[in-house]
Amino acid sequence: MRVRSPRSARWRQLPAGMRDQTSEDVAARRRLEARIRDVFARWGYAEVATPTLEYLETFLRAAGPTFADRLMKLVDGGGEVLALRPEMTVPIARLAATRLLPAGVTPLRVSYVAAVFRGQDAGSGRLREFIQAGVELIGDGSVQADVEVIALAAEALQTARPQSPAISVSHAGFLRGILSMLPDEDAETVRDLLYRRAFADLDRVVPAGPALDALRMVPALRGADALDRAAPLAVSAESRAALDLLRGVLDGVAAHDLAVRIDVDLGLIRDFDYYSGIVFEAHAGGIGQPLLGGGRYDGLLARFGHAAPATGFALSVERLLEAGTVRETEWATIVMRYDPGAYRRAVRAAASLRAADLGVVIVPAGVPYGIDAACTVTMSQDGGPTAAGATELADRVRKLLETGAWNS
Amino acid sequence: MRVRSPRSARWRQLPAGMRDQTSEDVAARRRLEARIRDVFARWGYAEVATPTLEYLETFLRAAGPTFADRLMKLVDGGGEVLALRPEMTVPIARLAATRLLPAGVTPLRVSYVAAVFRGQDAGSGRLREFIQAGVELIGDGSVQADVEVIALAAEALQTARPQSPAISVSHAGFLRGILSMLPDEDAETVRDLLYRRAFADLDRVVPAGPALDALRMVPALRGADALDRAAPLAVSAESRAALDLLRGVLDGVAAHDLAVRIDVDLGLIRDFDYYSGIVFEAHAGGIGQPLLGGGRYDGLLARFGHAAPATGFALSVERLLEAGTVRETEWATIVMRYDPGAYRRAVRAAASLRAADLGVVIVPAGVPYGIDAACTVTMSQDGGPTAAGATELADRVRKLLETGAWNS
Repeated sequence: MRVRSPRSARWRQLPAGMRDQTSEDVAARRRLEARIRDVFARWGYAEVATPTLEYLETFLRAAGPTFADRLMKLVDGGGEVLALRPEMTVPIARLAATRLLPAGVTPLRVSYVAAVFRGQDAGSGRLREFIQAGVELIGDGSVQADVEVIALAAEALQTARPQSPAISVSHAGFLRGILSMLPDEDAETVRDLLYRRAFADLDRVVPAGPALDALRMVPALRGADALDRAAPLAVSAESRAALDLLRGVLDGVAAHDLAVRIDVDLGLIRDFDYYSGIVFEAHAGGIGQPLLGGGRYDGLLARFGHAAPATGFALSVERLLEAGTVRETEWATIVMRYDPGAYRRAVRAAASLRAADLGVVIVPAGVPYGIDAACTVTMSQDGGPTAAGATELADRVRKLLETGAWNS
Repeated sequence: MRVRSPRSARWRQLPAGMRDQTSEDVAARRRLEARIRDVFARWGYAEVATPTLEYLETFLRAAGPTFADRLMKLVDGGGEVLALRPEMTVPIARLAATRLLPAGVTPLRVSYVAAVFRGQDAGSGRLREFIQAGVELIGDGSVQADVEVIALAAEALQTARPQSPAISVSHAGFLRGILSMLPDEDAETVRDLLYRRAFADLDRVVPAGPALDALRMVPALRGADALDRAAPLAVSAESRAALDLLRGVLDGVAAHDLAVRIDVDLGLIRDFDYYSGIVFEAHAGGIGQPLLGGGRYDGLLARFGHAAPATGFALSVERLLEAGTVRETEWATIVMRYDPGAYRRAVRAAASLRAADLGVVIVPAGVPYGIDAACTVTMSQDGGPTAAGATELADRVRKLLETGAWNS
């Protein structure tokens, strides 16, 4: 029987920006997540979890207005305004400042793998839910801490072996130093123009002079000699300090044997307001959007009542999967067919194969089965089991079933 | 510096029914999830994923009004009314009916591990977000399919080895057959009274007679001889068919060597309206709420345009963790301390330990480190590394560092 109402009824479909994942998608994602978790654990980062929903105010107060227009909000039964988390750095800062740091654990190395949500224009075609994996190193303001998270980011990227991976590094203080020469309201506008790469509009806001000259140069300050070319533009103490610190971080990163290229890109601007120092992003061949982004955010924890320096990164599991070149072997399912009266013996034979880490489905003989079996085993009324085929898997199955423990 | 504003500001806390999970919580949960996934895969169930948010209408149309007052709803930027999924059976029914079954895959064995959300009274203290793991077997209406999901539920429970686990089994048709003797509106009221175990109120709704006599007996119809005691109450054909089918399922389940007790409980009523046949719940010592619930829902997929019989279950990962007796070994973190100038050698020694699946944090000598190290390794300027202590871990670390590859 098939119901006749139209398949296309809207409530039978998904809202814009939402998607299902088939078993192949999920298997690949779960394996990548496991490898990433494993890398984080080896570097001493312990996974924590926070709720999907927090007070809207938590995100707005902690991270400022950049968040406001991309949050998905809801009003719960008690009239509270909640938001689906758009990222994990703010929730972990809250958890660290209100619970973990007051308990005396510092420095703190924590990691997460979590779904995050962004309100997007319905027509944009962009996902509104995706998985981020990341780390936060809290309570350590040293250059070594910046080096550690960049080196760890490089190693996390390599779990998927993307093509020609590269991490671009900058320091938020370099640009801030230049912008400090402008009136506050113009600085905000200019930062936004640079973020949107609308360089042509710069001279509508900034009068001719050393600030405009420097700002025009910023997008080109990338590559091996970028620090040398940037030095003359670092007219404020903040900009000079930023370049010195960046140089120290690059030296530290060079001590790690990384399979990922590390570049300077002083035009790099991250999307969230909370970054205060080193910032970085990773790209790989064929993927337009960054795979990973992070940096130092020394002011964020104070907003939750316990000041502490902090640095970290978040990677997009979906983008890393898309960029990855690691090919996975498929899970093989064995179909165990049984004649009437042989069910109990089939159950036991299946149990002995499952104990050897094989996937087994038990099906009555003669009943159609939807998928191609990697191997079919037949349990007849007075004989068997018999594994069909000459594959390696069939040989292994025959060997496992020789013991006959299922027959007792 | 510590910010002086009050710690108790509401936006620095979590909304009611939401919680953080520390690294110990998450480590235990991730290990249990991995074991459950492993069991599902061995039985041939492939994990799929659906979005956290769907149209509100999807849940209301598919599962009826039982859902309505416990859904968390939101209006997105385009004015669409969405809901956070309260369970995974409806989303998977949608995915199966609109994509997987039309592609010819049947029967379909799918699994999931996913966060689900329930709007609760703010004062109830109940969690509004929790993790469910479960399976759906779609396209197989046989008794064997019911047997398979119950046996798989028992094996999934055993991943945590709860104390005295038991699965209670019933058939929704037994009670439905008795209720069919009442007017429709009374049947709904009576079902609700039984669900809330308000047995004393039954005779305010049901007139004296065979229906009231049977309904009063229902809550006591549990245990080994329950089917025999129920037979005289099965006055309708539907009730009799339900008891016959239940007996067949129990015989099939007995063919599996389960470490979980299987009980009949004809008073069992599941919370969702979509159950049509066999229903079951699992309990274990010390936990008041069911750890797991499931059953057959042969009418649900037709609502999504592709009729198919289906059965499955969902378990609460949090409750199973709480009921579990499996104790986990803690992850040991090694602290690698280095003198000035020895950073590069410390990085390489750490990399060789991480390659052997150990967790290592690199810290400059003399800098305080928040947690107790399981083992401390010192890399001095012109010597080392030296692993302190006489533990097994320290011995292993010394052995691993003997090769000296980090020194090249």
